[in-house]
Amino acid sequence: MSLKSFLIGQPVETVKEKHERFSRVTGLAIFSSDALSSVAYATEEILLALVVAGTALINYSMAISVVIAALIIIVVTSYFQTIHAYPSGGGSYIVAKDNLGDNFGLVAGAALLIDYVLTVSVSITAGVAAITSAFPALDPHKVILSLVAIALLMLGNLRGVREAGRIFSVPTYLFIFSIFALIGVGLFKYLTGSPVPPPQTLQATESYFAIFVILKAFASGCTAMTGIEAVSNGVRAFKAPEPRNASITLIWMAAILGSMFIGISFLSDHFNILPIANETVLSQLAAIVFAGKGIPYYFIQFATALILILAANTSFQDFPRLSSVMAADGFMPRQFGSRGDRLVFSNGILILGLFAAALVVIFGGKTNALIPLYAVGVFLAFTLSQAGMVHHWLKLREGKWRRNMVINGFGAVTTAVVLVVIASSKFIYGAWIVVIAIPVIVYLTRQVRKHYDSIASQLSLEGAPREVEFEHHSVIVPVSGVQRAVIQAIRYAKVLSDDVVAVYVCFDPQETERVQQKWQEYGMGVPLRVLDSPYRSVIEPLMDYIEDVRTMHPDGVITVVLPEFVPQKWWHHLLHNQTALLIKGILLFKKGVVATSVPLHLRA
Amino acid sequence: MSLKSFLIGQPVETVKEKHERFSRVTGLAIFSSDALSSVAYATEEILLALVVAGTALINYSMAISVVIAALIIIVVTSYFQTIHAYPSGGGSYIVAKDNLGDNFGLVAGAALLIDYVLTVSVSITAGVAAITSAFPALDPHKVILSLVAIALLMLGNLRGVREAGRIFSVPTYLFIFSIFALIGVGLFKYLTGSPVPPPQTLQATESYFAIFVILKAFASGCTAMTGIEAVSNGVRAFKAPEPRNASITLIWMAAILGSMFIGISFLSDHFNILPIANETVLSQLAAIVFAGKGIPYYFIQFATALILILAANTSFQDFPRLSSVMAADGFMPRQFGSRGDRLVFSNGILILGLFAAALVVIFGGKTNALIPLYAVGVFLAFTLSQAGMVHHWLKLREGKWRRNMVINGFGAVTTAVVLVVIASSKFIYGAWIVVIAIPVIVYLTRQVRKHYDSIASQLSLEGAPREVEFEHHSVIVPVSGVQRAVIQAIRYAKVLSDDVVAVYVCFDPQETERVQQKWQEYGMGVPLRVLDSPYRSVIEPLMDYIEDVRTMHPDGVITVVLPEFVPQKWWHHLLHNQTALLIKGILLFKKGVVATSVPLHLRA
Repeated sequence: MSLKSFLIGQPVETVKEKHERFSRVTGLAIFSSDALSSVAYATEEILLALVVAGTALINYSMAISVVIAALIIIVVTSYFQTIHAYPSGGGSYIVAKDNLGDNFGLVAGAALLIDYVLTVSVSITAGVAAITSAFPALDPHKVILSLVAIALLMLGNLRGVREAGRIFSVPTYLFIFSIFALIGVGLFKYLTGSPVPPPQTLQATESYFAIFVILKAFASGCTAMTGIEAVSNGVRAFKAPEPRNASITLIWMAAILGSMFIGISFLSDHFNILPIANETVLSQLAAIVFAGKGIPYYFIQFATALILILAANTSFQDFPRLSSVMAADGFMPRQFGSRGDRLVFSNGILILGLFAAALVVIFGGKTNALIPLYAVGVFLAFTLSQAGMVHHWLKLREGKWRRNMVINGFGAVTTAVVLVVIASSKFIYGAWIVVIAIPVIVYLTRQVRKHYDSIASQLSLEGAPREVEFEHHSVIVPVSGVQRAVIQAIRYAKVLSDDVVAVYVCFDPQETERVQQKWQEYGMGVPLRVLDSPYRSVIEPLMDYIEDVRTMHPDGVITVVLPEFVPQKWWHHLLHNQTALLIKGILLFKKGVVATSVPLHLRA
Repeated sequence: MSLKSFLIGQPVETVKEKHERFSRVTGLAIFSSDALSSVAYATEEILLALVVAGTALINYSMAISVVIAALIIIVVTSYFQTIHAYPSGGGSYIVAKDNLGDNFGLVAGAALLIDYVLTVSVSITAGVAAITSAFPALDPHKVILSLVAIALLMLGNLRGVREAGRIFSVPTYLFIFSIFALIGVGLFKYLTGSPVPPPQTLQATESYFAIFVILKAFASGCTAMTGIEAVSNGVRAFKAPEPRNASITLIWMAAILGSMFIGISFLSDHFNILPIANETVLSQLAAIVFAGKGIPYYFIQFATALILILAANTSFQDFPRLSSVMAADGFMPRQFGSRGDRLVFSNGILILGLFAAALVVIFGGKTNALIPLYAVGVFLAFTLSQAGMVHHWLKLREGKWRRNMVINGFGAVTTAVVLVVIASSKFIYGAWIVVIAIPVIVYLTRQVRKHYDSIASQLSLEGAPREVEFEHHSVIVPVSGVQRAVIQAIRYAKVLSDDVVAVYVCFDPQETERVQQKWQEYGMGVPLRVLDSPYRSVIEPLMDYIEDVRTMHPDGVITVVLPEFVPQKWWHHLLHNQTALLIKGILLFKKGVVATSVPLHLRA
């Protein structure tokens, strides 16, 4: 208990719950860290996909980046409308469920849960890569560093770091500032014609179809778009007028994201940077633009690591929130819906941390090994969310519903096409895991809901016959000998009913006689019934006897009182026959019988 | 249940227990399989130890075998006396405990338990080696074959194969016959000067001290002596006059064992056989003596495998018997002392099988990897048993006690010296495991006994004040809402006492009001008490309330009745808050409070 309060702090009273409201400046920092941070690796992932073809296709990186930027504009326009239509927060799960039904909602929910886990793994490993690029000596410790970072985020969120929201503006603006500085200096060097490292020539490592390589590069680059939906999920967190502030923030974010991404891709292309092991593309670019690894270089690496950790942190808000919403709908275990001591959804935080840590370990802490799994979920959620909006307008048929429907429809079709490109081009590299996991999760959520529905109907008192009181109460105390634990049980049994019978199973007639004699003295006047057991089983004669009593009093209830030791050390349990436990286990399934243990507390 | 009866058969009635009495012919077969079977590997282990020095020391094998044969005579003479002094069965544990005290008895017991496990592992792997020598294609499947054999022995013994005792004479006599045939034909070839394969010359694989190599070879050969004590443990199983029949059987056994061992060692030496991978020395010898792998060869291999399995089987009798004796003395968990459905000590059989299987897996199914662990325990038990006998004669001072004491004393000193040689020469090769394990086991057995003693004194009713009846019974039903499981619990609570209070922990005032209203309708007249919980904990307000009730009725008892779901599938438990379980866990340690679950049986 004290370890727990040391790690996550004292409990917080329910009434202390409050809703912070953010200005646009703070909101941008809070909700865009996930989206913006992806520029730290998106360009590199495009280049990594292209170098399969050697340097032959490397110059496509710029074109691909422009296409992705256009895609950002389409998706953002679509979400702009969602914000106005769902001012209370229009996450893909809610929009899809409301408009397309439970099944589509669950698909969107499953896709998002998976992508939240991946956001943590990808952002953390990319953040660690920013650090190990600057300090190569740390490179062998990538996995451990990532796990430590995840553990710290978990602890921080279990304590409820949300309270400290405003501090989180700092890394985002640091990152925006440092990347724009990088791009500014880089563009200046480009315009002044400063010297450029000579282009390297690489051979293709395998035979390839150019179109597939380019599509895979595009799919990898689409990871830049993860996190775009964050603002539309969090409309309610903005100051009034919420939809207006949220949508303006969304446009700012898109503008910053697009220009940073295009800028980095352009400069990487211009300075002939190729992806290498152990140093990120952004690190190489910063080292070239700032002419070596001086203070500006370390500043960039530091800001990058910081925003990536912050991006991972947003998943620690989104995952527990989404799972609590799904739990409230009965699609996730109830435990995800209950707030812990510190008012946060502790179970969601723990599960997210554990899954993300598992992915980091399984994929060896390498960002580019995780990338093929990433973005599939996000684009599925995009598509379902826009499709849900199309349905929304069709239902509403008010105002500019036709224009809005066309915009969302165009968004839905575009993201659906991209989804197919991503899932198929990265399928064999890992996307198949997600393609399998989503239906599995949907199936499980439906099973959970089915279970809760069934329980609810069984527990319902509506229309059920009113319960009547029991007519008789028989108490049976199985007795293994005459000792203190047994006499304690008898003493307790006597307070329960006037009909108490002690039952002794006989293995050995001599021993039985001895027990009967001692019973005269210590038995507190309770009759002792001896049962024969030719096969040395305690269970069967006892169960037969219970059955007899039940037949005698069909409208009564039976309590079986079992003496129980409570030893001081867990392993002492191994030294005692667990007959009482076995009897309790069997009686659990017998109707009209309740088993009770009377604990006797033992010293060592 | 039906799987269990298929595997191990129907339960057997207690009255069916009987003691078979053996003639000398049957007794020899039953009790000597362990000792005799070791000639299948003892010579090979001597040679394996010697080839470390290349062929330089290989001819010492014969001398070592003669020394071991002399040792057999000394030990058997000593045990001859034990049989007459302990006609009811003088296992080392009993003899050492009776004469030297609990601690020495426990050391002997631990040593024997370890050696019983090793007997299974060594005999089974050696038996499998006899088969894979004949059918080399099976060689890669050694471990699996060994595990299957152990599993079959376990099952057979759980069924109670002891009943079929007489069948077991067959493999022993088959083996004796086939080995004497081998030795006879071999000696005939030796005497008639039939051609011999030329001696190979091997280089030493490492630098060595000749004396250490020879001592290690001697230590390895001493595994031939394991199992000698079996007859003296089983005196009671012989027909009257038991001591006479048992001691004559012992002498027969020693004579057969000694001559087979010397014979095999002599012929292996004569025919220049060296140990090789994948074929046993005995297999090579048989192939040479019988001029190829014909029917006599396969007969030998088959008989060898059979007696080795039988030898392993004796451990399946001895281990459970010894552990039941130790359990009766309170040194082992009580469960080892109770007979199962089939009148056998099932727990001992299961534990032995699991440990032996683990050793086979850990040591890769290789007999010679296990040998360094073997025989340490046996010689320790020999020594303690003889030392105990010395003490016995000293105490008795009757008849020829001086002569007898000298004989046992000589035996004790000899086996003690051999024990030191074995433990030190094989220490680094694995004997250290046993040297550590024995004191650990002794410590654990003493802890077990201490625990039982402490429990017994705490449970004793002698001199304790007589229990008085409780003056009051308060029943508390924690309620999470108004539903069927809760109402069932209320219905049960009402039969227990007139003082029943339902307790509801309030998180949300609106919800509380709703519950209070429904309670009017369904609460069966039981008062509902609402407790506040500012920190959303159910536990703390409830515990405070229980404390209040306890203060109100200090001489009463409290029952907390908890509604419990019994879902159909185990994973459904994950879908419910385990608050009831938590409450029960906490109440287990509160004096004067009994927690009871009222099960409500749910469908899927």
